[in-house]
Amino acid sequence: MTFVLPSIPDLRDAALSARLQHLIDHKTKPLGSLGRLESLALQIGLILGSESPRLQAPQLLVCAADHGLAARGVSAYPSDVTWQMVENFLAGGAAVSVLARQHGLALTVADCGVAHDFAPRPGLAELKIARGTADASTGPAMTAAQRDHALANGQSLVRGLPGNVLLLGEMGIGNTSAASLLLARLVGVPLEECTGAGTGLDEAGIARKVAVLRGVLALHADAQTALDALAAFGGFEIATLAGAVLQAAAERRVIVVDGFITSSAVMVAAALAPKVLQRCVFAHRSGERGHGAMLAHLGAEPLLSLGLRLGEGSGAALAWPLLQSACLVLQEMASFEAAGVSTAA
Amino acid sequence: MTFVLPSIPDLRDAALSARLQHLIDHKTKPLGSLGRLESLALQIGLILGSESPRLQAPQLLVCAADHGLAARGVSAYPSDVTWQMVENFLAGGAAVSVLARQHGLALTVADCGVAHDFAPRPGLAELKIARGTADASTGPAMTAAQRDHALANGQSLVRGLPGNVLLLGEMGIGNTSAASLLLARLVGVPLEECTGAGTGLDEAGIARKVAVLRGVLALHADAQTALDALAAFGGFEIATLAGAVLQAAAERRVIVVDGFITSSAVMVAAALAPKVLQRCVFAHRSGERGHGAMLAHLGAEPLLSLGLRLGEGSGAALAWPLLQSACLVLQEMASFEAAGVSTAA
Repeated sequence: MTFVLPSIPDLRDAALSARLQHLIDHKTKPLGSLGRLESLALQIGLILGSESPRLQAPQLLVCAADHGLAARGVSAYPSDVTWQMVENFLAGGAAVSVLARQHGLALTVADCGVAHDFAPRPGLAELKIARGTADASTGPAMTAAQRDHALANGQSLVRGLPGNVLLLGEMGIGNTSAASLLLARLVGVPLEECTGAGTGLDEAGIARKVAVLRGVLALHADAQTALDALAAFGGFEIATLAGAVLQAAAERRVIVVDGFITSSAVMVAAALAPKVLQRCVFAHRSGERGHGAMLAHLGAEPLLSLGLRLGEGSGAALAWPLLQSACLVLQEMASFEAAGVSTAA
Repeated sequence: MTFVLPSIPDLRDAALSARLQHLIDHKTKPLGSLGRLESLALQIGLILGSESPRLQAPQLLVCAADHGLAARGVSAYPSDVTWQMVENFLAGGAAVSVLARQHGLALTVADCGVAHDFAPRPGLAELKIARGTADASTGPAMTAAQRDHALANGQSLVRGLPGNVLLLGEMGIGNTSAASLLLARLVGVPLEECTGAGTGLDEAGIARKVAVLRGVLALHADAQTALDALAAFGGFEIATLAGAVLQAAAERRVIVVDGFITSSAVMVAAALAPKVLQRCVFAHRSGERGHGAMLAHLGAEPLLSLGLRLGEGSGAALAWPLLQSACLVLQEMASFEAAGVSTAA
């Protein structure tokens, strides 16, 4: 498959913005009193190009893959947990399964490169590039062809999904390392500030992880562009998610970003096409060290801050009802005039 | 009606806590990775006395009343907005109506002392003490008998509601002034730090409001206890909410607190029976100045921080799905053992 960067047009529309803001300001509430929900309503209206936006058939896409670098002890869990959790997602027992069920989100789990053979079944998309990336401490995590294949996989997958909302999730033992490396390289944040506990390293474990990542960063000193860095550091799930984000943005879907890993995929997509950020709603500020710097780089104002550091799309699912509320405020709240309520003196 | 302070027993239960924590820690996720949702699940489990707590028939109670002090120009809106918004709540056009409908929350609007005669209808509880409180700048907002009547009204109202969750909301032009005065008196926070924009005063308006409140605070220098301060400053909706909180706590309901005004009712209830706080989930950190200090005094860690400053129970309704998620995590997530997922090394 060939990766072709889609056109992502500028969504700014002064006339629609003004109409949406007028609607919001004339609802029966003090000006601005719904806070972040109001800017969210405005953003969703602009993405969907409507004064009465309706979110339809929300799709939660969980991309999973393994990382060769995990063999270097950068995670508290063994790589087998990646495929075991994919099974858990599909069996309905993981956090993201429970939350997707609660909110009626259609869950698709994509095997983007897990080191395991899955039996085919509904809800599982088979997009395996390889059985995990190569070890980035000894060479590039993937070839340019593999990277482009993963990007194209993400585009193709989203093309086949219904609805106008894409929620992002991921699973991959070792993938906070890839995200930290991408942040360090693409934004220039010191590696110590990019690198956190992941699934649960203690401070000594984090120090060892930083040391490993420092070597990886140095080995790939020439990988300076987003695409080169993506190939150098991985992973397949991040590349597939970046492709999914580009496609969703091109189709003007609302994109709900989860935590550190999915934000890193957005960071890569935004390096290729900055206007994708207009379509992104950042669900939460993760407890993972590095996410704050990444959000700041992306100019993101996340909805929740609950100390989550699970990934899977759990934060995106938890934030989902707030998007629905923002749309319902636009659609269903009365205006001062319609409700016969006096305005401010 | 006579107000009798109910017994609010200590909910601490080391054995149940340990069982709940064990369950949470053995779910298929890194230890602690669901952050605030985990402490929420533990709290709800303790309130409902169950390792598999189920939230049933959630009731959103919006208490409304008018304030004599509003005549002193402490609000950006005229007092008529109180009854007009009660009509809007019942007609389904207010923010809280929309959000309650979204989440299947049963909405009860209580007229605790609005300066208006409402036609009886379903969803409206008629508990009017008077047509607004007296002007607190010239005397006590209410008599001790009126205060006790309002407290007893809140208890009686909750006794008649089904379910095991009470979400709190309010409406009353002028009621941020009452809440600010309660905070200043009961916690000793300087009035400037207690007093905010309410429905939308500018800085000059806030300065005038502070000047009025300073006079009120001085006039009632002898009202030092929670009950005396409640009578001195009002309002009827805050007193009714305080009674509702005490009754809900006595019945071991989960209490979902909204913003600045409902928190002030909890502050009064907690001054009478500190253990009510064990039953309180604080939905959000309001944009209203003073709420931060009040939350700190109550030791509260709110779920959301969205810059909301609307009241009505809108923040409580927005936070509601997080409580459901916390229970579903306990009930439906698989354990490492059950899912066959490897644990940390």
